[in-house]
Amino acid sequence: MMVERVKTGVPGFDEIVGGIPKRNVVLLSGGPGTGKSIFSTQFLWNGLQMKESGIYVALEEHPVQVRINMRGFGWDVRQYEQEGKFAIVDVFTAGISEVAKREKYVVKDPDSVEELVDVLRTAINDISAGRVVVDSVSTLYLTRPSVARSVVLQLKKVLSGMGTTSILVSQVSMTERGFGGPGVEHAADGIVRLDLDEVNGELVRSLVIWKMSTSHSMKRHVFEITDKGIVVYPDKVFKYSR
Amino acid sequence: MMVERVKTGVPGFDEIVGGIPKRNVVLLSGGPGTGKSIFSTQFLWNGLQMKESGIYVALEEHPVQVRINMRGFGWDVRQYEQEGKFAIVDVFTAGISEVAKREKYVVKDPDSVEELVDVLRTAINDISAGRVVVDSVSTLYLTRPSVARSVVLQLKKVLSGMGTTSILVSQVSMTERGFGGPGVEHAADGIVRLDLDEVNGELVRSLVIWKMSTSHSMKRHVFEITDKGIVVYPDKVFKYSR
Amino acid sequence: MMVERVKTGVPGFDEIVGGIPKRNVVLLSGGPGTGKSIFSTQFLWNGLQMKESGIYVALEEHPVQVRINMRGFGWDVRQYEQEGKFAIVDVFTAGISEVAKREKYVVKDPDSVEELVDVLRTAINDISAGRVVVDSVSTLYLTRPSVARSVVLQLKKVLSGMGTTSILVSQVSMTERGFGGPGVEHAADGIVRLDLDEVNGELVRSLVIWKMSTSHSMKRHVFEITDKGIVVYPDKVFKYSR
Amino acid sequence: MMVERVKTGVPGFDEIVGGIPKRNVVLLSGGPGTGKSIFSTQFLWNGLQMKESGIYVALEEHPVQVRINMRGFGWDVRQYEQEGKFAIVDVFTAGISEVAKREKYVVKDPDSVEELVDVLRTAINDISAGRVVVDSVSTLYLTRPSVARSVVLQLKKVLSGMGTTSILVSQVSMTERGFGGPGVEHAADGIVRLDLDEVNGELVRSLVIWKMSTSHSMKRHVFEITDKGIVVYPDKVFKYSR
Amino acid sequence: MMVERVKTGVPGFDEIVGGIPKRNVVLLSGGPGTGKSIFSTQFLWNGLQMKESGIYVALEEHPVQVRINMRGFGWDVRQYEQEGKFAIVDVFTAGISEVAKREKYVVKDPDSVEELVDVLRTAINDISAGRVVVDSVSTLYLTRPSVARSVVLQLKKVLSGMGTTSILVSQVSMTERGFGGPGVEHAADGIVRLDLDEVNGELVRSLVIWKMSTSHSMKRHVFEITDKGIVVYPDKVFKYSR
Amino acid sequence: MMVERVKTGVPGFDEIVGGIPKRNVVLLSGGPGTGKSIFSTQFLWNGLQMKESGIYVALEEHPVQVRINMRGFGWDVRQYEQEGKFAIVDVFTAGISEVAKREKYVVKDPDSVEELVDVLRTAINDISAGRVVVDSVSTLYLTRPSVARSVVLQLKKVLSGMGTTSILVSQVSMTERGFGGPGVEHAADGIVRLDLDEVNGELVRSLVIWKMSTSHSMKRHVFEITDKGIVVYPDKVFKYSR
Repeated sequence: MMVERVKTGVPGFDEIVGGIPKRNVVLLSGGPGTGKSIFSTQFLWNGLQMKESGIYVALEEHPVQVRINMRGFGWDVRQYEQEGKFAIVDVFTAGISEVAKREKYVVKDPDSVEELVDVLRTAINDISAGRVVVDSVSTLYLTRPSVARSVVLQLKKVLSGMGTTSILVSQVSMTERGFGGPGVEHAADGIVRLDLDEVNGELVRSLVIWKMSTSHSMKRHVFEITDKGIVVYPDKVFKYSR
Repeated sequence: MMVERVKTGVPGFDEIVGGIPKRNVVLLSGGPGTGKSIFSTQFLWNGLQMKESGIYVALEEHPVQVRINMRGFGWDVRQYEQEGKFAIVDVFTAGISEVAKREKYVVKDPDSVEELVDVLRTAINDISAGRVVVDSVSTLYLTRPSVARSVVLQLKKVLSGMGTTSILVSQVSMTERGFGGPGVEHAADGIVRLDLDEVNGELVRSLVIWKMSTSHSMKRHVFEITDKGIVVYPDKVFKYSR
Repeated sequence: MMVERVKTGVPGFDEIVGGIPKRNVVLLSGGPGTGKSIFSTQFLWNGLQMKESGIYVALEEHPVQVRINMRGFGWDVRQYEQEGKFAIVDVFTAGISEVAKREKYVVKDPDSVEELVDVLRTAINDISAGRVVVDSVSTLYLTRPSVARSVVLQLKKVLSGMGTTSILVSQVSMTERGFGGPGVEHAADGIVRLDLDEVNGELVRSLVIWKMSTSHSMKRHVFEITDKGIVVYPDKVFKYSR
Repeated sequence: MMVERVKTGVPGFDEIVGGIPKRNVVLLSGGPGTGKSIFSTQFLWNGLQMKESGIYVALEEHPVQVRINMRGFGWDVRQYEQEGKFAIVDVFTAGISEVAKREKYVVKDPDSVEELVDVLRTAINDISAGRVVVDSVSTLYLTRPSVARSVVLQLKKVLSGMGTTSILVSQVSMTERGFGGPGVEHAADGIVRLDLDEVNGELVRSLVIWKMSTSHSMKRHVFEITDKGIVVYPDKVFKYSR
Repeated sequence: MMVERVKTGVPGFDEIVGGIPKRNVVLLSGGPGTGKSIFSTQFLWNGLQMKESGIYVALEEHPVQVRINMRGFGWDVRQYEQEGKFAIVDVFTAGISEVAKREKYVVKDPDSVEELVDVLRTAINDISAGRVVVDSVSTLYLTRPSVARSVVLQLKKVLSGMGTTSILVSQVSMTERGFGGPGVEHAADGIVRLDLDEVNGELVRSLVIWKMSTSHSMKRHVFEITDKGIVVYPDKVFKYSR
Repeated sequence: MMVERVKTGVPGFDEIVGGIPKRNVVLLSGGPGTGKSIFSTQFLWNGLQMKESGIYVALEEHPVQVRINMRGFGWDVRQYEQEGKFAIVDVFTAGISEVAKREKYVVKDPDSVEELVDVLRTAINDISAGRVVVDSVSTLYLTRPSVARSVVLQLKKVLSGMGTTSILVSQVSMTERGFGGPGVEHAADGIVRLDLDEVNGELVRSLVIWKMSTSHSMKRHVFEITDKGIVVYPDKVFKYSR
């Protein structure tokens, strides 16, 4: 049985995994500075180029800053927003600041997963979203680890149920080897880990596809952050003993 | 005294253990992405081919998704369900969604081990189940580790008591070396551990039979996930120092 | 001054320790699958062959299953039970099930160390027990680690006080290097540790006598689980750096 | 798109990062004795030389001592204070001592992040600050780790929102490898880590730019604390395996 | 200034430390099975041979068992007890059992350090004790670690204040590298650590004098437990990297 | 700008640091038996020889014992006490014992940092103290780690504010690599660490100056405890990988 795939458009990445199986929820896990937000917004921008609408749920950055950051890589989403093909769900400002009042999709209580799910559902319907990024899910349970699995499952139900292919960004501490805790790791359909390691005084970026509901590369691949976004090198394997 | 064995039908696996002793409860432990659910459903599917009815208790996935995932390996259980030879116990949806209403065996309160045991008992009786998979037991005590042993013992009493041979899936964190905690590890009749390790930038799958109430291979065997399910290589020993 | 010794009858074991000093309470510690229950029941069975009555306190397994497991090694205790030379104290079923009602020594409240001590005292008197196994003591304080030492001391007082030589099975997690916590480790007269280690992809069984109130082997000995029980190899030293 | 950069003026540092992107909030993380306060005040002093006003939020030292420490490196801020180009926000004395009464910007309740933000806002307005240092943010959540992320976000909103480029000093324990916890690490726009390591009986200072919203050196650079402040050696890479 | 020394009489030990400075309180720390009780009772027995009265505070063993254990090494204290030169303070039985009623010094509430200090004071006065052993102090704060330092200080005040030279036995877990926690370690005048290590499949006994208010050997010495007690080998250094 | 230095008088030490900057508060950190109290009292004694009055705050030892210990190294402070040039602040006896009643400076509630600060202030004034030792500060927050930083800051304010140069003794566990926790480590002006390490079966003493508000040796120096106190060897570097 053939599984339908969604291309990330990240150079080199689709080559090693063959795209993300449609409707799957992928955990994108990594420490600070590993490139999680860049990978995620690149996934959305590339979707727009392939005529797939997308939604970015902003929990870590001001929506204005998200747009600025994307523009820094040449990804200007303003026209797509006007055409109803791209939307930012603002869970960062709680709708208080003046700027935020201009945002269309706002979650007023950042602690309410229910409100987030409601707003997300509306946004997905409005723009017929095919791709969704939640950056980050960790924020939703940072101070309440016991609800982590339940939060991820609630998101998974609406995201997968409404037909979107999505990335949940999972922030782990610089020293943590896992992907965000057992409840979260097992609830996701796929896990991609971005790493930043110091080897002989030099920082090296690499990623590994730890889990995917389809066959995938079993190697750790070097990648770089360029001024056009992330580039994965399918042939450069990073041999590192942690 | 000869012990009656149940063949898993997983290529290579029965060769290294000689099947699972009947009525035993085996803990199938592993981190995310190690293939626990694939192994478990393969065990049930193979049972169906050998005229043994089976039950899958779904705590991590929507029953619909479970069927899709199995079909991905060519294991189409629909006819068996209609013939009353296979059943899914739905502890995932809590019976709320429309789709779920079509499920026959539903546990409405996912926190109630009592209700789970009741529904399970009915299902085992209805289809005269010889094999049961609970995927995963970890979910039942994720936020209440102190009840872990008691939960496993309750399940063990009904599963073993009703004559089924069963697999309890135990989710451990990617970094955890144990099998799910002392209470759980000692309560099971057998323990099989699935591992995914990174060696020189490459991911390797292996399994080890840590405990079985019968003689078994004392080696760590390499296995792969193919498009027809798991294949264990009895002659490929994975030498790895953790 | 000569100390009276009790022979375990486990092949090779008495050779390395010279038997367990009479009235001693030995902690038999090990992770899951290391062979603790086999060693313990072998100790009791061998006692019966030497005309010493014995008691097995079942906290982890159904008494019926204990008998089946023993029979698997050719140790059929039924006749000894009828002759009043062997008894199982059932702390597993709490006396609820039909089968359990047939058991003579039942502890109805598994959380009550007092009731356990009372029943145990009666059983020791009834059959003039020379050997007692409690499998496992860990269960008695799994969720209440602060009472561990007090539980072990209460047992030690009755067991040693009534003249029996006994084994307290201590379950430790697969990754734990100790013997069950400081309170327990120091309260026992002797400590035997059973280990299962993975070396170059192969599992190896070994044991070490860590403490005994008499001179003993200071080496780590390889042992095996055969279809006739445990066999220790006094001349095979397992050199392993943990 | 070109990003505007703020030069730190720390010899060698701007060479390896090209300055800090304007409006960014950089976490300067390090153990005791690594030179965090020296780097921070050097950043402010150099700003003054480039006609950029600056504010130092003192949570760890008496404002008087801060001025003395800076003077030790030849950085005499008194004239700049009189000209309204430099200010110290005193969160150390709580305004109680006589000396402190002479301070203009005082936070009376050191536990109130709200008061701190208010005073900081006033100070930034008064002197049109381009650079701000908070030394240290760790103090604000030392005994309340669960509020760490929220504190950093509140500061980030006012600092970035009012157009300043800032350094948040993050104190980590000597043995901690991270940067101050996941909540803090991910909230900052950039992370610079200062280290002090013992190698063969000798202490070595080095720094690494772990994260910056722009391209930066991927190497660990040796630095020294001289009597004129910190000097980074762009060509000296410190190869150290932690 | 010459410090008066108390000879332990343990063969080889006095050679490496020159005896314990009078009135000092020495922490004798070690894991299970390391020989702490043997060393302690040997210290008391040797005192008796040198005309110094001694007291053994029994918290871990029944006083009857303590006498049996000592006799096993040829140390029969009965005559000394009759002559009022040796006494056991019973903190083990709480004075309940028949046998215990024959004990002269009994602490009825084992949780009351005050009662222990009172009884101890009386006993020291009665027999003009020069040496005291408390086996173990750990028992006094096992479940209340926060009072550890205060307990040790209370004992130290009475023991040192009344002129005795004493050993406080500190039980540490098999895997613990410290001596019983910071509060305890720093409160003692001296620290002797007994170790049992596995090297290449063989157990080796060694001790190290970590702290003494006088000059002492700075080496780790091998020792053995013989049928006449502990023998330290001043010339056998155990080189072991933990 | 030249910083005024206070000579410790410890042979070899001033050579590697050039003395402690005046008014600085130095954390002297180390495990049990590393020589912290000897270093501290040597610092005070040498001050007396240089006409600088000194105060020793005794939290770990009876004042009488402190005097005896100092005399053991030939440091007899009695005359200096009579001349009002040296004082012991007794926070050990709480003023209860007869002997303690003879002490002039007594803190009755050892848990009250306020009372300690008051008594300390009086003592500093009375004898015009130039040097103060608090042995140990750890005792003040042993059971209340959350107040550690606040305690150290309160002491720092009075000690530095009244012009004294001081040493705060910080007790760490034998296995702890830090200096007493992040709150304490960052609050001190300087950090000196005393270590005792076992290398190939031999104990070696070394110290490292981890932090000082002035340039200092960046090496780990061997030192010894002689019968005249501590001697540091500036040319003996201890190369040790922890």
